[in-house]
Amino acid sequence: MTNRTRSQPPAPHGPDLRDPSPDPAELYRRFLADLFGVMAYGELSAFERMSSDARFSPTLHDRTVLGRLAVREYGHFERVTGHLRSLGLDPETAMRPFQPSVDAFHDRTRPADWFESLMKFYVTDGISDDFYQAVASRLDPETAELVLGLQEDEPTGAVLEARLQQALADDPRLSSRLALWGRRLVGEALTQAQRVVLERAVLGGLLPDTEQGVYEDEVKTLFASLTRNHSRRMSRLGLTA
Amino acid sequence: MTNRTRSQPPAPHGPDLRDPSPDPAELYRRFLADLFGVMAYGELSAFERMSSDARFSPTLHDRTVLGRLAVREYGHFERVTGHLRSLGLDPETAMRPFQPSVDAFHDRTRPADWFESLMKFYVTDGISDDFYQAVASRLDPETAELVLGLQEDEPTGAVLEARLQQALADDPRLSSRLALWGRRLVGEALTQAQRVVLERAVLGGLLPDTEQGVYEDEVKTLFASLTRNHSRRMSRLGLTA
Repeated sequence: MTNRTRSQPPAPHGPDLRDPSPDPAELYRRFLADLFGVMAYGELSAFERMSSDARFSPTLHDRTVLGRLAVREYGHFERVTGHLRSLGLDPETAMRPFQPSVDAFHDRTRPADWFESLMKFYVTDGISDDFYQAVASRLDPETAELVLGLQEDEPTGAVLEARLQQALADDPRLSSRLALWGRRLVGEALTQAQRVVLERAVLGGLLPDTEQGVYEDEVKTLFASLTRNHSRRMSRLGLTA
Repeated sequence: MTNRTRSQPPAPHGPDLRDPSPDPAELYRRFLADLFGVMAYGELSAFERMSSDARFSPTLHDRTVLGRLAVREYGHFERVTGHLRSLGLDPETAMRPFQPSVDAFHDRTRPADWFESLMKFYVTDGISDDFYQAVASRLDPETAELVLGLQEDEPTGAVLEARLQQALADDPRLSSRLALWGRRLVGEALTQAQRVVLERAVLGGLLPDTEQGVYEDEVKTLFASLTRNHSRRMSRLGLTA
């Protein structure tokens, strides 16, 4: 262990750009542990939140639909943890470093009702999908296939979008509240994501021979595109982002 | 519609022993609607409660195990609602009459912590399994196969039992609290179940040519055996029922 000052976050198994690793293969493996660790914990949390919020759905039909989406999240969680195991990595060890930020995101964004809860899944699902797509383009083909293979025939985002559009048509007064809520959500999500990416240098393993400055530029570009896509989704709901 | 006094519960499509139906096939179909309706709603509710309570698990490992059990419940829910549809019945219509009693059961038995939550799933899972087994022996072979086919290779009850045994070994002080809690749970579960069975005459369709008295005797015998099996399960945990 290197000595760390208080202001530096611990990084039990993440790549550390300050300690250049001599072995690119090991660096890539650590990066995969982080990538699948954060994916797995995000999916497990989404599953739990989605299925608990399902209970407050306005109709039995909504309960079953939301339940099915939650179960899908658990399915993704199982595939991702299965992949970690196949790499010889322990899923719980890989998830643990991301628990505080994911939990903090959920604690700071407690939906006031079912519609806010729906909006929250829609926003976070969209951002994560975009994030994984961006990352996939830089992965080895087999890993990329796994990450992209998590997209379903009828994506979760499309189901949620249709339901939100219906809710907004039924009650147009929802729109100003949901627009405000969408802004809070994207702010919190990107703040937490950026913290994770910078602290753990999640993307560092993809850029082993670059300098810190290049890495930070990459991260900025990525987050700008995540914000842009979020705004597009809000427009499709008729909301200003 | 027959005129009903206020004290009589509505029975939109359940068999009504006061209105002898001339058609045993239709009576059996109504019985199946009730049986699968209550199963489906019970499973949907168990799924939602189990996955929300998973979040409060003491370890990440427990969260994933409880999540998996919850997902199984949703799988059962889908098989049962699929079967209702194959009979030309609408799952939501079939579930609706049982919503008040199942919700009342859950409202009256809110677990104080994760161990009480685990105990609740263990108790209710055991009682429902026993109930379905008892009912299956009187069903047509195809329906019986579906009902019994919901039993897994590693039954949910066995997973919960092992985890509860471990918890009780780790902290023997839990035992008096969980014994008390088990008694409350079985009391509430059987009270609600008995109400459903008598009000809706759920088992009536199985006994089309018997009299009310015989039906009530059958119900008493069934509930006595449910209680006996519950006591056996409590003993396996080292608790007095």
